[in-house]
Amino acid sequence: MSPYAPHPVSRVLGVDPGLTRCGLGVVEGLPGRPPLLVAVGVTRTPADDDIAARLLAVEQQIERWLDEYRPDTVAVERVFSQHNVRTVMGTAQAGAVAIVCAARRGLPVALHTPSEVKAAVTGSGRADKDQVTAMVTRLLRLPDAPRPADAADALALAICHLWRAPALAARRPPAAATRGGGR
Amino acid sequence: MSPYAPHPVSRVLGVDPGLTRCGLGVVEGLPGRPPLLVAVGVTRTPADDDIAARLLAVEQQIERWLDEYRPDTVAVERVFSQHNVRTVMGTAQAGAVAIVCAARRGLPVALHTPSEVKAAVTGSGRADKDQVTAMVTRLLRLPDAPRPADAADALALAICHLWRAPALAARRPPAAATRGGGR
Repeated sequence: MSPYAPHPVSRVLGVDPGLTRCGLGVVEGLPGRPPLLVAVGVTRTPADDDIAARLLAVEQQIERWLDEYRPDTVAVERVFSQHNVRTVMGTAQAGAVAIVCAARRGLPVALHTPSEVKAAVTGSGRADKDQVTAMVTRLLRLPDAPRPADAADALALAICHLWRAPALAARRPPAAATRGGGR
Repeated sequence: MSPYAPHPVSRVLGVDPGLTRCGLGVVEGLPGRPPLLVAVGVTRTPADDDIAARLLAVEQQIERWLDEYRPDTVAVERVFSQHNVRTVMGTAQAGAVAIVCAARRGLPVALHTPSEVKAAVTGSGRADKDQVTAMVTRLLRLPDAPRPADAADALALAICHLWRAPALAARRPPAAATRGGGR
């Protein structure tokens, strides 16, 4: 890596966790530059399957995405308990599976709240789903909006992380500059 | 297996899921016979570690128990959303990890509610923690009560499954009797 490129291109897998639909989105970019779409999709598991089969299917799909797209970081939505408690259980369970898949590979895991994600991509923490989808479509310069909303949310999460990461890293003490022996 | 032993000895790992303390208990037995203690313990993860490190530690510990004690079934407490919502998140996340560990090995996963467990070991779905611990201690003929309560709860869950399994299996159509060719 050249010493003149302090911020290498970073690839982030965003996961909008859920059992019925789990949104997955991979983006790549440099801080301050428009992000690039790598992949987007949704994993669904049948509501009449038992929880073990559903969580295993989510795990297998996330493993497949990690193998195929090799992200540097995994960003997962931070689940809040004030939401609908029934939905929150499945979200917490699927999110736990995503977190463990990343941690097992030694990948950093970042959690962002829904309002942090909305604020990062739309400028407002209270933006609605349509605004988030519209901004994700514009930021990634996509011909069509990613569907369903879970797919767009996963991309928004990944973009949020890409843009917040330098600010988070800036809190750490700077590493000593590394120079070649001849200088 | 002799054709005169329709119920083989079954070994169950009970998991009382949690991030701060995750209770693990293995019992072995035949329906209608006193259960036998195989192992009991508790996994703790530090509250100031991040969620990824904590879930990974829970996964590694459960994998170790599955390797060492080779249960036939894993019984996990079914989490209810009416509990304290903050605690429920960690319980749901740790429970999801236990469920996936079992499912990945093709082991059946059974979920039992806290009141099913209490009713199975004490006769009352409204028994308190002390009654559950006392009955677990008596049923397994232990010299001392398992501590902390999470360890006793994990054993109660495993005993509950051991005793409920024949009733659950009886709902399935009976398999044809298998006899040796010489008889």
